[in-house]
Amino acid sequence: MHITITEVAPRDGLQSEKRFISTDHKLRLIEAIFASGIRSVEITSFVAPAAVPQMADASKVMTAIAKPPGAIASALTPNLRGAHGAITAGADEVVVFASASATHNQKNLNRSIDESIFNIEQIAVLASQHGVRVRAAISTAFGCPFEGDVPVQHVVDIAKAFSRMGIRHISLADTTGMATPRIVHEVVEAVKEAVVDARLALHFHNTRGLGLVNVAAGLELGIDEYESSLGGVGGCPFAPGATGNVCTEDLVHFLHEMGHTTGVDLDSLVSAAHLLEEALGRPLPGQVMRAGKRLQLHDPNAAPVARAR
Amino acid sequence: MHITITEVAPRDGLQSEKRFISTDHKLRLIEAIFASGIRSVEITSFVAPAAVPQMADASKVMTAIAKPPGAIASALTPNLRGAHGAITAGADEVVVFASASATHNQKNLNRSIDESIFNIEQIAVLASQHGVRVRAAISTAFGCPFEGDVPVQHVVDIAKAFSRMGIRHISLADTTGMATPRIVHEVVEAVKEAVVDARLALHFHNTRGLGLVNVAAGLELGIDEYESSLGGVGGCPFAPGATGNVCTEDLVHFLHEMGHTTGVDLDSLVSAAHLLEEALGRPLPGQVMRAGKRLQLHDPNAAPVARAR
Repeated sequence: MHITITEVAPRDGLQSEKRFISTDHKLRLIEAIFASGIRSVEITSFVAPAAVPQMADASKVMTAIAKPPGAIASALTPNLRGAHGAITAGADEVVVFASASATHNQKNLNRSIDESIFNIEQIAVLASQHGVRVRAAISTAFGCPFEGDVPVQHVVDIAKAFSRMGIRHISLADTTGMATPRIVHEVVEAVKEAVVDARLALHFHNTRGLGLVNVAAGLELGIDEYESSLGGVGGCPFAPGATGNVCTEDLVHFLHEMGHTTGVDLDSLVSAAHLLEEALGRPLPGQVMRAGKRLQLHDPNAAPVARAR
Repeated sequence: MHITITEVAPRDGLQSEKRFISTDHKLRLIEAIFASGIRSVEITSFVAPAAVPQMADASKVMTAIAKPPGAIASALTPNLRGAHGAITAGADEVVVFASASATHNQKNLNRSIDESIFNIEQIAVLASQHGVRVRAAISTAFGCPFEGDVPVQHVVDIAKAFSRMGIRHISLADTTGMATPRIVHEVVEAVKEAVVDARLALHFHNTRGLGLVNVAAGLELGIDEYESSLGGVGGCPFAPGATGNVCTEDLVHFLHEMGHTTGVDLDSLVSAAHLLEEALGRPLPGQVMRAGKRLQLHDPNAAPVARAR
């Protein structure tokens, strides 16, 4: 199956970084991502700079990027003002989001789910007027760090609300890494049944080591679009020390080994991960960037001798 | 399904550690592992101290451990002399091994596969004379870092050789993290067919992020026994910087969330992982020990506010 990867490192990966990554570094990173063959990149977030200082250069970055033909540059837009900014700066797609759990929505966006839905509808109208695509994410779709298990009906209700406002591209996000294959099956099947014409993407975090296990469950369900982050950067502010998003290189390596196509050149993607690692100045959780691809063989005469099993 | 976990941290996890972990630390670690409910532990390796200085206290450790009733204390024994030592020290089980690839066997054991099989047969006879169990591992069963893909027939041939010498407990080991679900299906099905009366265990490494993905494949195939390492310690000497064995806490967390039983208390296991982390003096790759269990909820009033998706 051909799998579409949306790279979220420039946004989801960097947003929690305390040290400001220069606009130039961000642009080189995005360039390296596009160069690997990835054609959908979450470039930045149009938020108040006071709230997320790392994204203070959102307009600059979005305006300056050089996009290959057919590439989609998206931006996270938590409100109408952000959407205005993103569209003005030339975003191809705005990403809107609401949580499936009321407590998380309140904590994350400081409003009720109903207010979020109302707000998203305004963004959808604006985007439609400008011919800009909309991707709508349902946060905490597989569990909430405050409420625990989230009733599947809550996820379905939000998906239906998105569908009613004409949004066809829906991403189910495992915000704090609470998904398991069992819950993925349950939620994806329910959403597919409720909004039959939706294009579904899955966004997993590796917080409890299950990121790729959940991708495998998504593949079983026929889902052909995943959001992931170079080097596995990002992560949940509620689980300090835990790793973040599913790692893009590890995901692409896995998909290729399973016989899927992605249009991505893995070597070039690994180079982009190393570029990001340099920019952040610390080892990233990605595995393939360290271990190499499975058939990247070692010279038996050069390798260290050790008993291994 | 009830899943048996064999904890390999005291042996596979520690063997590559350069700094000697004191015998007392090792004993406390093993005690903590048994206290969590795990009943099968690879305690140590009976090898030449010059080759693996970390295991120089093998006899001391094996003799001193306090085992709960029904627990199995095993030891890795690469040769007959090691097996003698293990049995003398009171091991319940000796673990023998040969690689499915000739180059790896030569590098790892400095002998041909045929010589290894001959050698294992002598150990099996000795063990049988002393009423000690034998577990036989096939290293590089899912790929070799020198030869690449390993023909399934090679794995089957070794499994059959083990079976012919009366060994019923066979572990398929992904020595350098080259397994994928596709290969797991292929190899496990072939081995099951070739040695119908064998009890199969799977031993995965997370070198390329696929450890738990491969466990999920094993579960689909009905395999109910896995070898893993507390905190995810260990790893492959041929992939520097890469993580090691599948992490036991992350595995147990996953299994419980999928409705399987293990007889292990996860909280107590996480405490054991923290004990190991302290002994090694560096952060371990385990995720659940940092993030907590998925339903370990956060106080919405105490949590940091950040936009997350």
